[in-house]
Amino acid sequence: MKLVKTVAELQAIVKEVKKSGRTIGLVPTMGALHEGHASLIRAAHAENDFTIVSDFVNPTQFGPTEDLDAYPRTLDHDCELAEAMGADVLFAPSPKEMYPSKDMTWVEVTGDITKVLCGRTRPIHFRGVATVVSKLFNLAQPDKAYFGQKDAQQAQVLKRMVKDLFFPLEIRVMPIVREEDGLAKSSRNVYLTPEERKAAVILNRALKKAEAAFAAGERNSAKLVALTADIIRTEPMSNIDYVEMYQLPELTEAEAEITTDHLLAVAVKFGTTRLIDNVILAVNK
Amino acid sequence: MKLVKTVAELQAIVKEVKKSGRTIGLVPTMGALHEGHASLIRAAHAENDFTIVSDFVNPTQFGPTEDLDAYPRTLDHDCELAEAMGADVLFAPSPKEMYPSKDMTWVEVTGDITKVLCGRTRPIHFRGVATVVSKLFNLAQPDKAYFGQKDAQQAQVLKRMVKDLFFPLEIRVMPIVREEDGLAKSSRNVYLTPEERKAAVILNRALKKAEAAFAAGERNSAKLVALTADIIRTEPMSNIDYVEMYQLPELTEAEAEITTDHLLAVAVKFGTTRLIDNVILAVNK
Repeated sequence: MKLVKTVAELQAIVKEVKKSGRTIGLVPTMGALHEGHASLIRAAHAENDFTIVSDFVNPTQFGPTEDLDAYPRTLDHDCELAEAMGADVLFAPSPKEMYPSKDMTWVEVTGDITKVLCGRTRPIHFRGVATVVSKLFNLAQPDKAYFGQKDAQQAQVLKRMVKDLFFPLEIRVMPIVREEDGLAKSSRNVYLTPEERKAAVILNRALKKAEAAFAAGERNSAKLVALTADIIRTEPMSNIDYVEMYQLPELTEAEAEITTDHLLAVAVKFGTTRLIDNVILAVNK
Repeated sequence: MKLVKTVAELQAIVKEVKKSGRTIGLVPTMGALHEGHASLIRAAHAENDFTIVSDFVNPTQFGPTEDLDAYPRTLDHDCELAEAMGADVLFAPSPKEMYPSKDMTWVEVTGDITKVLCGRTRPIHFRGVATVVSKLFNLAQPDKAYFGQKDAQQAQVLKRMVKDLFFPLEIRVMPIVREEDGLAKSSRNVYLTPEERKAAVILNRALKKAEAAFAAGERNSAKLVALTADIIRTEPMSNIDYVEMYQLPELTEAEAEITTDHLLAVAVKFGTTRLIDNVILAVNK
């Protein structure tokens, strides 16, 4: 595996790979790779001839009070893991490489899809994500790009972007990878104290209860949301940012009685650490 | 030459062309093709294996009081001209094809470059241009894309967009094509009454005087601007929107005494028709 730090070097590699007719899989990450990322890289490696993992803590998707500086950076570990999972290139550029101009060119997906859930408390987040992912798409020119279902809203936003701007690629969304006790893998889990870490399992437990109620026939969206929030609130260390349900794929208002696929998503703080998790309530599963 | 009206059909054609390793030239137009467009198509045909001309009056780059509905549509003529110049495909989609979602995904280049000149009186114009051209780039996947120097600010904005978002292509800017009396070719010239048409030659005449003064050693930007504006004002039918000079490539404030390449650009109304023209004052020409 090759560690690539400049745009020019990546462009040269991609040009050669495209010329030889090989397919490219791209796994955009912010580094601090864990088992969730590993599953994406494995899938990219299995489904494409050449796998590029990007490793870039993107400043434009962090708000002024968020954890940009504290975000874990583990490049040596990332290289080892990416290589072991079959990556051909790990692309780890500097912010200056990714943002060459004094002023920005933004890519922005508008509508409910970026206003609800994390969009409400993180108003510039998805503009930063759409912008950096557009840059990565143009650099890596992938046939398929891999994202985790854990960032469910991000996956829907990027699918809309690909549809609207006609990017010639397929977005593949891979299942959430969890710890043994059910906590969704996240680079931010390292921020948790041992007590918070224990408390955080309530998220998955609550979502599983809602999923079970849905499977047993409950179709009232307000009841499913209330059930989830009530269970999370039984954990005294939890501090709910949101527990909400929206209709897929555009994250429009949930139906009162669910007849189509919906996303049930939560964002909850434990101490200063904000965790997200979700489940898709699929009517034809 | 093939007339293509749907995104899906264009995508299928581009996929085949790319697979065969042929290079693609793209000429984005709003139709109403004239000799200026013809020169772009000829260049694309000469420099690439496969030439795609798009023909789409893009609604998102027109302001609410602008000439979207009146803009000339001449599809049959456009097909004939594009084919004669060597185009392989004329892509003439509907607005619904190009804008498939209820809400928009925007591409926006920020900074002086989109705020000055036409950006001041047409605040949403370049966002519409950047968005539709991004879509066309992703659809046609060109090696080279062709634009006219007549829309000088547009060319600079799109170069910035390509640089910032790393589109894997080259922007080619081709010289202004003029009528025999010097008026720059424009789809909007058909709006002019015979009297306005005669009066409009003052634009080129004024810019040529400024160019001559510059060639003769005049380096004071304010003087060159004043000289240009004074000549245009000698034409009673002219109504100046702007006569301005900016530093290339970012359209930052002009130097008092010019030491680098600058753009001298004018927008002038004749009756209800707004015409633009420009000249590059190149220090190392």
